[in-house]
Order: sequence, then structure tokens, then C-alpha cells
Amino acid sequence: MTGELTAVDAAEYADRLRRVRDKMRERSLAALVVSDPANLFYLTGYDAWSFYTPQCLVIPAETEPHLFARAQDAAGATFTCNLPAEQIHGYPEELVHRPDVHPFEWIAGAARDLVPAGELVGVEGDAHFFSPRGYFALANGLPGNRLADSAELVNWVRLVKSPSEVGRLRIAGAIAERAMRIACEQLRPGRRQCDLVAEILAAQAIGVPGHGGEYPALVPLLPTGDASGTPHLTWSDRPFRIGEATTIELAGVFGRYHAPLARTVMLGDPPQRLIDTAHVVAEAMESTLDAIRPGVTGGVVHEAFDRVIRSHGLRKDSRIGYSIGIGYPPDWGERTVSLRREETTELAAGMAFHIILGMWMDGWGYELSEPIVVTATGVERLTDLPHELTIRR
Amino acid sequence: MTGELTAVDAAEYADRLRRVRDKMRERSLAALVVSDPANLFYLTGYDAWSFYTPQCLVIPAETEPHLFARAQDAAGATFTCNLPAEQIHGYPEELVHRPDVHPFEWIAGAARDLVPAGELVGVEGDAHFFSPRGYFALANGLPGNRLADSAELVNWVRLVKSPSEVGRLRIAGAIAERAMRIACEQLRPGRRQCDLVAEILAAQAIGVPGHGGEYPALVPLLPTGDASGTPHLTWSDRPFRIGEATTIELAGVFGRYHAPLARTVMLGDPPQRLIDTAHVVAEAMESTLDAIRPGVTGGVVHEAFDRVIRSHGLRKDSRIGYSIGIGYPPDWGERTVSLRREETTELAAGMAFHIILGMWMDGWGYELSEPIVVTATGVERLTDLPHELTIRR
Repeated sequence: MTGELTAVDAAEYADRLRRVRDKMRERSLAALVVSDPANLFYLTGYDAWSFYTPQCLVIPAETEPHLFARAQDAAGATFTCNLPAEQIHGYPEELVHRPDVHPFEWIAGAARDLVPAGELVGVEGDAHFFSPRGYFALANGLPGNRLADSAELVNWVRLVKSPSEVGRLRIAGAIAERAMRIACEQLRPGRRQCDLVAEILAAQAIGVPGHGGEYPALVPLLPTGDASGTPHLTWSDRPFRIGEATTIELAGVFGRYHAPLARTVMLGDPPQRLIDTAHVVAEAMESTLDAIRPGVTGGVVHEAFDRVIRSHGLRKDSRIGYSIGIGYPPDWGERTVSLRREETTELAAGMAFHIILGMWMDGWGYELSEPIVVTATGVERLTDLPHELTIRR
Repeated sequence: MTGELTAVDAAEYADRLRRVRDKMRERSLAALVVSDPANLFYLTGYDAWSFYTPQCLVIPAETEPHLFARAQDAAGATFTCNLPAEQIHGYPEELVHRPDVHPFEWIAGAARDLVPAGELVGVEGDAHFFSPRGYFALANGLPGNRLADSAELVNWVRLVKSPSEVGRLRIAGAIAERAMRIACEQLRPGRRQCDLVAEILAAQAIGVPGHGGEYPALVPLLPTGDASGTPHLTWSDRPFRIGEATTIELAGVFGRYHAPLARTVMLGDPPQRLIDTAHVVAEAMESTLDAIRPGVTGGVVHEAFDRVIRSHGLRKDSRIGYSIGIGYPPDWGERTVSLRREETTELAAGMAFHIILGMWMDGWGYELSEPIVVTATGVERLTDLPHELTIRR
């Protein structure tokens, strides 16, 4: 695990910014206002749990980018952000959580000099931490400009990973694999869900030899028993019971890069429908991984999966995977390419996906997943665990 | 800890909804679209990590509320949500993360019958998971209505806690106290930050005898050394060192109710400035807690704090506390009452606050906090730890 290339140097940051500006130019954006914490991290390295109050990076097409955050966060931003202090601005603390004024009014005022009047300004219209109120404050504060949805402009720039990013994903994969091994081994009848989660959380933080782990964008999800048909339920303090299956979804995280992973554990003898589904899904996973290579579309990959499950009379409406990389709560997906019927994007070497084959039935479910990187010839798996249903008696 | 009243019964849910509708009536809202996961939980019990895709509760002034979520989440919503299945609606999976269509277009179409044409519809304009794109999709999909910012309508209804809510807060306090004791004891020179975090995370999940813990809205924050002047930095795998102070902020969580708690740990002999600051802050905490009682404003409480630190030549620009209760990532604050100079809201019995005295200096910092409930005569502390700087040699 040591010796891997995971550092992002100044040239790589410059290249990322250049690629963002190329796309800004295509869309005639004179500036871009970036709010998504994953995009902030990608472009500047800025990394703090500060996204619960408004913050953004303003990228003018021609001049230097500027970071805007709450005063107490701006003060410490240079611990992680690669911008010089004079390009980091803190809005006054008294603007936080006020009914009458909004931080984006202040930000718009401070950013006015950076944004040429009369020009189009891109905003992240569907980012998690950019609210309608922030949008309108920005629009009113930049009366000489028109705002346009960036349509995940930076997210799309993030799609193909550099060698340093793949290096981080590999370490994240090793952490995910270790955490999942512990989860599958420690899931025992009579043990409370929260006690198993304690072991998973600890494993995620401890990481692997040489590399500590970081916080994931989602907490471990482990719906169990008749709730296992429900993918996003979080844990309780009820004990695991013989006769119940549990689907476990977790991620390993390193340098903010996520390798998510899902497996299913049965306590006691599995019902035949679970055995059968596990076999079909393992076959479908093989078929899906075989289909992945540069030049094929997401729709073609989905068809490789769908053909297998259809032939066994199964059906799945939700996507079977999505692009991964940097993650912040509440999501580790990049919100760009999904592996589903309608996806026309062609895969390319360096893209990374979480292939998640979740079969959520009425009252039961089965999950099997793989985090992978697309290579020149096919697929690199980031974890190495068997594709079977885990049975513990 | 056992025997405490923590269950929310049907009458309490009905009362919450009634109080929301009273405020809707005051503001002439014919319907309210609730997106904040904490507000969804408060009004229906709905609890899942599904807030990374659009979801909302539509509350008409006169008829029954309806929950809208992604199909795979709607299918399992009744595990936690108190609405009957016919009031829960799933939008198609293919609408997730699409550039051309947005789930709120579908939601608006489905909700049109619930929302009288020509009337005002409230939305949560500054909620974390309601995006500008969602806002515009809703506005376009309800062409016969005008949208108005609810100005945290439901958050304000949550401000005064019921006995069952206070019961949950007490258990959350017990969990926070236990986790902080472990954190202070286990912080040792040479130990990696991530290894200490592993113990904290495990303690938060394990909880206290009889009550398992839940995931907090924020991960443990423990800026250390010269980063301790920066409140929202997350951990790394660097080891703790003699001569460095660490500020630790964490929460105990039970039934989604949060008791946040902060302390500062010094490894080795503390510098005089830290000793002095700790004394001043302990005195200021006493003065602050003494000032809290029904009928005083947040501004008066702040003045009790500020008088003490001013007399010692210190200054703090940020608020010294905020209302707490239900929390979901990324924030455990309720975004209503802040304890600061400008706050005119009068405190009332049943309100709960995180009093956080964070002194973030240039290159160092000190934090001391208390989660409390306002009682008829003063304050109930939810945790019981000393107010001193912890020194470990």
C-alpha cells in the first residue's frame, strides 16, 4: 500500500481549473459559483465540515478564484485550501442563521468585482448546500448578471480520474474491504445492530496499515429482516436474529475518495429465494464487469446486467451503478454518469464506478456491489471479496 | 435511565401538525412543502438516509399530508413514517440524477390536486436539501400558485420540547458524556487522531446501558495543535503530540435528538494563555448558565457571557449557543434561536440549547460547551463533566 502516488500537486490543481475553464468558455460563463463541497475540494483542496453554512468558490473566467466562507471557517481555511490568504474571504459571524439577512447577500457584494457586468454566471443549481434563498440573494446581489445552472459542470470534469486519484481510490478500497470483512465476521445472532456498527465505524476510521481512514459521506446502512427490502434505513439497537438476512452497505474513505461496498449476510439457513437471487446476481455481476471497457455506453453495461436477470425472471427498475470519487455527506455519488438503460455516456479509462446490484423486494432484499476503475482494457476491482451470499450459522 | 418517557404517540404527532397549521394560517399558506429531514422526522417519524435525493412532505392546510420520495425509499417509508401507505408516493427511479428532468417536476404534478390553485404555497427556502433546481421545478409545476419562503416555519414549531423530547435529549446527553469521557481518557501522545476517533465513533454507536446510540449530524471534530483555532477541521492520521492542545466536539444521539458537547485536552504543560482562557471561559459559562431562565432574551444571555470575557480583555464575535433537538447531517442546530447580541427571542421552559463557548484564536483555541434544557426556574444540564481544561501529562 505504501509508495502509492496519492498527492495532488500544483500542476494537477492547475490542470483541473483549466479543464473547468474550458467548459465555462463553451457555455459562455464569465464566472462560476461552486458550492458543492466535493467540487471545492477537487479544485482547491479545501476540506472542513463547514458546508452547513453557505460557502462557495467564485471562479472568474480570466482572473484568480476566490473562496467565501463564514469568518471562523475562512480564518482556518488555509490549513487545507491551496489559495493564498488574500483570495479567502470570511463573511461576518452575525450573518449565520438569520431570518432577515443571508450570507449570500454579503458574498454577492464582495464578489461583484470578480464578475463582469452583463455576463452569464454559472451556479450549481442542484448542489446539496446551495439553497433557493442563497440563489435569490446571489441573483439580487448581482443585478447586472444572469445566473445559469452549471448542470454539474465541475462534477463532469471530475469524471475521469488522474493517477493520484486512482491511488486514493485503491487505498479507499483496501479500507472498505477490511471494514466489510469485520462486518461480515462480527454479525452474530443476539448482537445489537448498533454494536456491529460501532465495529464498522471504528474500522473505517482506523483504516489500513500506513493509511488512516476518514469519514464517509453516508453512515453504514444495514437494514435487516423484513426491512432489508429498504436500502436506506439506518441502524437501531435491536439484536440480529437467526433467520434474518442483513444487507450491509459501507465505504472506505481515503483523501476524501470513496470506495463503497455492499454485501448480504444471512444468519441461519437462507430461504431458497435468497439463494436463487444470490446466484443470479453473482452471474449478473460477472456479466456487468465483463461488459465494462472504454467506448461502451452506460446503457450497454446495464443491458449486460439486465439480460442475465431477465433470463431468470427478475426485474430491477433502479440504476445498477454510478460514478464515484470524492464524497461529502450526504452522497458519495458524483451525480453524473449512472449505469442504466438511458445512459448514453461512453465509458473511458480512469472513470470509477460503484456497481451496486441491489434487489429490493417486498419484505426482503439482496445486495452485492463492487467499486471499480475503468482501465484501458476493462476493469480494475478496488476490493477483493467473494461474490456469494455470506451465510453464518 | 430506564423508564423514561421517550415515545412519541399519535396525539403528540397530531399536536405538532396542528401547531404547524396554526402558523400556516397566520401566513395564509394553503400548503407547505417540507424538505428538511429533521422537519419530516418531527412531523411524521420518517427516518432514513434518503435525503440525498429530493423528498418532501406536502401539508395542505385542510387535508391530509402526503410524503413524496424516490420509489425505492417510498416503498420502505412505512417502517418509520406514520402516514398510511396511500399518502406515500414514490417517483420513478429513472428521474434520479438526470440532467434533463428533475424529481420535483413529478412531485409538483402529483401534488397539484393537494394544492388549491391561486393560493400561496410555503417552501423551505434555506433548507439543506431543497435546491434551486428543485424550487424552480416546483414553481413551474404549480403554475397556479405563488411560492413563499416558510422562513423555517416548522423549525420554529420545534423550538419548545415536549416531555418525550426532553426524555430523548437526556439519553443523548448520557451518551455524549460517556463518549467525551472516553475521548479525554484515550487521547494520548503518539496515538493517531483517527484511532481516537474510532473510539469516539464506537462509543456514540454503543450508547449507554439500555439505549443504543445513533449517528450524529456531524462527525467528531478534533482540531489539534496550531489547527485548534479552526473549529470545523476533521481528523487526519497524524499522531497527537506533547505540547499540543486539542478541542473535541462531539454529540450523543438518541431517537435523532442531539446533545452536543465540547471540551479541550492539553497534552503536557499548558501555556499560560490557555490556563488563563480556560479560567475565564469557566467563569463565563457559569455566568451564562445563571442567566438562562424563561422570559429572558437570547441577547440578555449573551450579555452575561460577554460581560465576563470583556472584563478579562477577551472578545468573541460568533454566537455562544443555538437551539438543538432533532439533527440530520450536516447540522445539529435547529436554525432558529441563536444566543447572541441581536437575539430578541425570549427563552421558555422546554427550549434546548447547545451553549458553546469556542475561543478560536490565531493558531490556538479553547472550547467548553454544555447542552441544556430551559426549565421553569433555570437550567437542566444534560451532561455532567467538569468545566476545566483537561490536562494529560
